[in-house]
Amino acid sequence: MEFTLVHTDPKSDARAGSFETAHGTVQTPVFMPVGTLGSVKGVPPRALHEDVKADIILGNTYHLYLRPGTDVVEAAGGLQRFSQWNGPILTDSGGYQVFSLADRCTLTEEGAEFRSHIDGSKHMFTPESVVDTQRALGSDIMMVLDECPAADVSKAYARESNELTLRWAERARTHYEKTTSPHGHEQALFGIVQGVTYPEVRRESARALVDLDFPGYAIGGLSVGESHKDMYDMVEVVAPLLPEHKPRYLMGVGTPENLLENVARGVDMFDCVMPTRNGRNGTLFTTQGRMNIKNAQFANDHTPIDPGLEAYVSQTFTKAYLRHLQKSNEILGLQIASQQNLAFYCWLMREARKAILENRFMAWKDAILPQITQRI
Amino acid sequence: MEFTLVHTDPKSDARAGSFETAHGTVQTPVFMPVGTLGSVKGVPPRALHEDVKADIILGNTYHLYLRPGTDVVEAAGGLQRFSQWNGPILTDSGGYQVFSLADRCTLTEEGAEFRSHIDGSKHMFTPESVVDTQRALGSDIMMVLDECPAADVSKAYARESNELTLRWAERARTHYEKTTSPHGHEQALFGIVQGVTYPEVRRESARALVDLDFPGYAIGGLSVGESHKDMYDMVEVVAPLLPEHKPRYLMGVGTPENLLENVARGVDMFDCVMPTRNGRNGTLFTTQGRMNIKNAQFANDHTPIDPGLEAYVSQTFTKAYLRHLQKSNEILGLQIASQQNLAFYCWLMREARKAILENRFMAWKDAILPQITQRI
Repeated sequence: MEFTLVHTDPKSDARAGSFETAHGTVQTPVFMPVGTLGSVKGVPPRALHEDVKADIILGNTYHLYLRPGTDVVEAAGGLQRFSQWNGPILTDSGGYQVFSLADRCTLTEEGAEFRSHIDGSKHMFTPESVVDTQRALGSDIMMVLDECPAADVSKAYARESNELTLRWAERARTHYEKTTSPHGHEQALFGIVQGVTYPEVRRESARALVDLDFPGYAIGGLSVGESHKDMYDMVEVVAPLLPEHKPRYLMGVGTPENLLENVARGVDMFDCVMPTRNGRNGTLFTTQGRMNIKNAQFANDHTPIDPGLEAYVSQTFTKAYLRHLQKSNEILGLQIASQQNLAFYCWLMREARKAILENRFMAWKDAILPQITQRI
Repeated sequence: MEFTLVHTDPKSDARAGSFETAHGTVQTPVFMPVGTLGSVKGVPPRALHEDVKADIILGNTYHLYLRPGTDVVEAAGGLQRFSQWNGPILTDSGGYQVFSLADRCTLTEEGAEFRSHIDGSKHMFTPESVVDTQRALGSDIMMVLDECPAADVSKAYARESNELTLRWAERARTHYEKTTSPHGHEQALFGIVQGVTYPEVRRESARALVDLDFPGYAIGGLSVGESHKDMYDMVEVVAPLLPEHKPRYLMGVGTPENLLENVARGVDMFDCVMPTRNGRNGTLFTTQGRMNIKNAQFANDHTPIDPGLEAYVSQTFTKAYLRHLQKSNEILGLQIASQQNLAFYCWLMREARKAILENRFMAWKDAILPQITQRI
């Protein structure tokens, strides 16, 4: 996977880039809507393309492996054909879910043994098996299996865990070279930098992974309970150690402010459930600020949800209507809010890219942040 | 409201017609998707127009009066503007909901007093007030307030109830003449024939309502627990008594078979929650038959949901994908199934109309019914 570094901001580490996949081009910085189970909750693929204007979406190996099962997705011709999202897809390795969601997870040198959170059945993920699973899923970007420790573990544990993650990364890298996609298209494999909030461990992790020469690098284990300052500090430690001409993906992050602050620190790719999950709960992200659409102040507000966005839902539906739908638990209310928030996140990254290309990223960021983070 | 009777089938009472509203033309026979609270559950108005190809949808006076409140919808410019469904809308009077859903409903000559099922607040619906409410909602077709007795009441009760419904109909008709739409467009008012399953009471009801000269007539109080035979018998009793050049609407019906059997008996309009409700539970209506998409047989069925329909969801998504979404409780699974079923119902009525116009309705009905009602 070729990453083209198009431009770097002169006043920050913000980068504009692009990379090609077998399913289309991704322009960075980019936000990737999360489609855990093979669907971005409440958003049909047509709307993801045309309204949200997403470049790339996520799927999750742990979830898809359990349901519908890797064999079903493989038989469909891969996750793109199965879901009819025909753009690029990145799949999580499932490491995070195995440790956070599965029952009775046992970690060994070999891999992670766990029981399904759905039916209690026993399974084993190894660095090799998750590559195989992702090969079968046909994602354009695969992730290595890693251990993601909690934010409050000791430095000793962080280091021990990281060393296991690195040994797994090497095994995954080796297995990756020996395998190909059953669907005939190129698949990249990203390494994942761990190290909790210990700069020294983060550095060890980054350097070792760079030596393994992955097509791209993720920064994992953040947005798991640490402060925003710690998150930014860790990105500042790690980003400069990563190769300039490879994409950098900060996993599971975050608020609109988190995205822009991390773009300024040289991150290219993000994913987060926040826009869809918060949307379902009534929190809207708009170009004019953040709002709880269920508030009484919107009961008779017959203005569009977000005049600043071109998306169908943003222009078409009013705040009063969306408030009514959400107060009445109508499914359409979840759909509209999810699409609005995703359209906003993708718009924000496109605007950031424009600003980087025009050498005005930091000024733009300082101007837009108070506007989009204000409560309305 | 002008109803044009375009053609009557020579071998049955099936009719092809059309009528004009301020928000567009409706071609009959027609199925009207139900948008109780101002949204057809899970289906954005754009998809209703473009994919489902609905001519007209329903809203419910009881529900909208309580939430978001009539004043909010009126301030939005009516239900069309509020919901951004810009086609014709018919609103139920709320009579059925007051009796079936509200708490502690008390019936008097004046009207129906009830407590909201949401917050217990006390309200009164009268024949006049529900016309006023529907004027404010701006529906193209309004319904009179009626009492809808259970299927098993005595003939004496059915007659007594019907006489109250008729006195209410007359009051509604008088009030209708004295009022106009605050939104400046024409609104029709339909009378509702009641009488449970007593032919004599049904006849009394129909004759009295015809004397009141409504722009259209509904047959109410069916599909409430009686047998299909009783339903068809009552339609056979009532339909011939209704004016030929006015539309006939059978409320709350029904299965695809119910629709075609009642079209054959001269009904023009239908509404039912079945396509959306059953869709959410995994029952799919398709041009090839009925299926429970959650069944294991579809786990690896990578063929389109319904190759026989043009709708986006029918052509785009596979049975295996929809099964996976529904088994995993993904919102998109509800959306896809609802759109498929509504697209099917609307397609069925368009096909019926074509067959009527070509003098082959009964042959078509006999050929299509085994196909679409078979279990696959």
